[in-house]
Amino acid sequence: MSDKEVKFDSYYHPTDSLPFEQGAKGVPLTLKPDSRYSLLSDLPLPAAVVSESALIHNAQWMQNFSDQSGVNLCPHGKTTMSPQLFNMQLEQGAWGISVASPAQAQVAVEAGAKRIIIPNQIVGLANINAVLDLIEHKGVDIYPCVDSQYLVEQWQEAASRRQLTVPLLIELGIAGGRCGCRSHQQVKALAEDIAKATHLRFAGVEFYEGVIHGDHGEDNAEHLVRTFVKGAVALAESLIDLSELDKPIVTGAGSAWYDVVAEEFANTQDLTTIIRPGCYLIHDDGIYQDAQNAVMARSQRDTSTACRIGGDLISALVLYAHVISVPETGKAIIGLGKRDAAFDAGLPRAVRLYRDGEQHPLPSLVSTNIMDQHLFVEFEQAGALKVGDVIAFSTSHPCLTFDKWRYIGVEEETGFVTKWLDTYF
Amino acid sequence: MSDKEVKFDSYYHPTDSLPFEQGAKGVPLTLKPDSRYSLLSDLPLPAAVVSESALIHNAQWMQNFSDQSGVNLCPHGKTTMSPQLFNMQLEQGAWGISVASPAQAQVAVEAGAKRIIIPNQIVGLANINAVLDLIEHKGVDIYPCVDSQYLVEQWQEAASRRQLTVPLLIELGIAGGRCGCRSHQQVKALAEDIAKATHLRFAGVEFYEGVIHGDHGEDNAEHLVRTFVKGAVALAESLIDLSELDKPIVTGAGSAWYDVVAEEFANTQDLTTIIRPGCYLIHDDGIYQDAQNAVMARSQRDTSTACRIGGDLISALVLYAHVISVPETGKAIIGLGKRDAAFDAGLPRAVRLYRDGEQHPLPSLVSTNIMDQHLFVEFEQAGALKVGDVIAFSTSHPCLTFDKWRYIGVEEETGFVTKWLDTYF
Repeated sequence: MSDKEVKFDSYYHPTDSLPFEQGAKGVPLTLKPDSRYSLLSDLPLPAAVVSESALIHNAQWMQNFSDQSGVNLCPHGKTTMSPQLFNMQLEQGAWGISVASPAQAQVAVEAGAKRIIIPNQIVGLANINAVLDLIEHKGVDIYPCVDSQYLVEQWQEAASRRQLTVPLLIELGIAGGRCGCRSHQQVKALAEDIAKATHLRFAGVEFYEGVIHGDHGEDNAEHLVRTFVKGAVALAESLIDLSELDKPIVTGAGSAWYDVVAEEFANTQDLTTIIRPGCYLIHDDGIYQDAQNAVMARSQRDTSTACRIGGDLISALVLYAHVISVPETGKAIIGLGKRDAAFDAGLPRAVRLYRDGEQHPLPSLVSTNIMDQHLFVEFEQAGALKVGDVIAFSTSHPCLTFDKWRYIGVEEETGFVTKWLDTYF
Repeated sequence: MSDKEVKFDSYYHPTDSLPFEQGAKGVPLTLKPDSRYSLLSDLPLPAAVVSESALIHNAQWMQNFSDQSGVNLCPHGKTTMSPQLFNMQLEQGAWGISVASPAQAQVAVEAGAKRIIIPNQIVGLANINAVLDLIEHKGVDIYPCVDSQYLVEQWQEAASRRQLTVPLLIELGIAGGRCGCRSHQQVKALAEDIAKATHLRFAGVEFYEGVIHGDHGEDNAEHLVRTFVKGAVALAESLIDLSELDKPIVTGAGSAWYDVVAEEFANTQDLTTIIRPGCYLIHDDGIYQDAQNAVMARSQRDTSTACRIGGDLISALVLYAHVISVPETGKAIIGLGKRDAAFDAGLPRAVRLYRDGEQHPLPSLVSTNIMDQHLFVEFEQAGALKVGDVIAFSTSHPCLTFDKWRYIGVEEETGFVTKWLDTYF
């Protein structure tokens, strides 16, 4: 069980100076001697904050899940793009960090990652050279993906010009899905091309099962995911001879099916198995909570790893905002908008209410609409909300809330921020 | 007519050094001696760029419109949050800059704005004090809004504690709309409270007509907007005696009805009339183009200002991205996603195609879906797209594309970037 002490050395602690740029959102404007900023009075709202204990819990939970499942964890970093959090995930035992682009890889390298998976097609000389720069100058292992002969040729040409060797994963896709070869045949042909190329190495098979949607409900989707992953494992095993790696890689799994993927990965001894969930660290109160409920239901059905390790993921991210107007009976306008919160998978949902500096019972509130800088909330109980009230909102889809903030406060104690994460989107 | 030379002094010119932070998107990784970066070969894509000539044209067009209409222009800065663009708008003759929050006001002040309208309710001591800091230390005129007695009291208390005087606008709202008093009666009562308060001044009336939606089409909406604006002007005139300002303010107008608002403002001589469109500077190829088409149609009907000044707004923002996979016949995956582009008012739309460094005829392409890092494009013509192709996409709703980028390239010549804007969201 992972119980390493969590290091947060690189958080911003605005004790001696204000490291924040001019006009940054949700950060203090003047210093307090005790560096303890109340979300109810000291910080300009809206502000985005994460619970430190929830973050640590989630990081440990998924590391434990991976350890117990016998798979490596290479969390997708695109969710947070926060070097401090990458660092924490690596300290907890993550095998590496996954990213979606060379620019994101650069941030992961700065955060200390020595192994980086890019489960994406890297196209264009500028992008390819950015990856080669990291390989050449930073001494890191980077595994980009290809799904076309064109890209194999591009990598070979660029790598040979610089006398570097690049390990490539081949992306296996899904009919109707996103990138990736649609047949095992295509993957095999590309693996042979890579094995023959002087400056490339075939590193294994990558997939993203998150684009599989069962037409006949959850059970059907699970069946499709299992069948697909079994196929990917068998495919990777069949290509072992084309790889110079001791144990070539098979890697998949977003935050919805990581349990099923890990179970299927348990059936191979000859591959390095790696899962790549990302949203688990922040988690949410919407689509990823729904996905995690499905994980736990499957786990209880089978008494499998996720229920054996105990506990569950916790939604770590909250947005604090003011009621700025109550212009009509039963309708309030909140100072929080599309500029601050994800809105593509459900609107922010009120979870706590504060009035005059004290927590109040939360009335029944429904978020009905969102504009660039405003959220509309409706309620039935007369006087349920007043101008000046502070509401804490949970969110759905953490990626698209995180990328709205350059600085995210860390709550060690609910309602108080003492340090900040920074993000690099 | 505005023909002032446009200053772009404060653009980043990465000639001698790379001012960009580690891992920033869409910026060069290594220096080129001539500082001329091709979007087809030198820059890692995706990248966001604006056309310099379109920006200058749009800035001048709206300034001319305002000058000819006899209204002041206080462009909403929330769209771009770019000090370089604020600076350009002020150089062109803008009266001031409008912003949505104290953090945004800080950026506008740094960019040189001496007058700032905050057409929003500013709530909480931290936010109120942030505004008071700017008034006290930066010598700027800031006009926040109120629509409740609670906020009048909050401002009075905070301002009197610091021995400052704050000019307040009162927001007039719309039944079923956003913030703002729902009756002229309420506005009058608040204006009297403000006039009586020792550290407040009644500065005028603010509204945002963009939340008016006609149930019976465009003509009905225009009628509703005209009636509402007439009422707001009459209300502001009736409250002149409560203001110490020579000419109190009446201000409204987003980017959809600025022509109608300006026409109604022309009927008063006793008020300082100010329009606040924001999206016009970047413009788009979607919802704001539709809105502008309606402006031009009204203008041609009435031979009014917008058609008399000639020309029209131009969509200035384009995203360049690669075709990264063509996994199935008629389907391509583009390296551009929700992390890079607005998706709430239509998906990015292909406008130009480049292959092997040359512009190619654009086949018929339809954007069908978007994920965090990927856009799905479908086409009928076999071989219409190949991996490695570069596509330039136009967007709909510039605000939500701009806030995804910390650096936005400036095209002086199509396809080449020599300098960058920075943004402060």
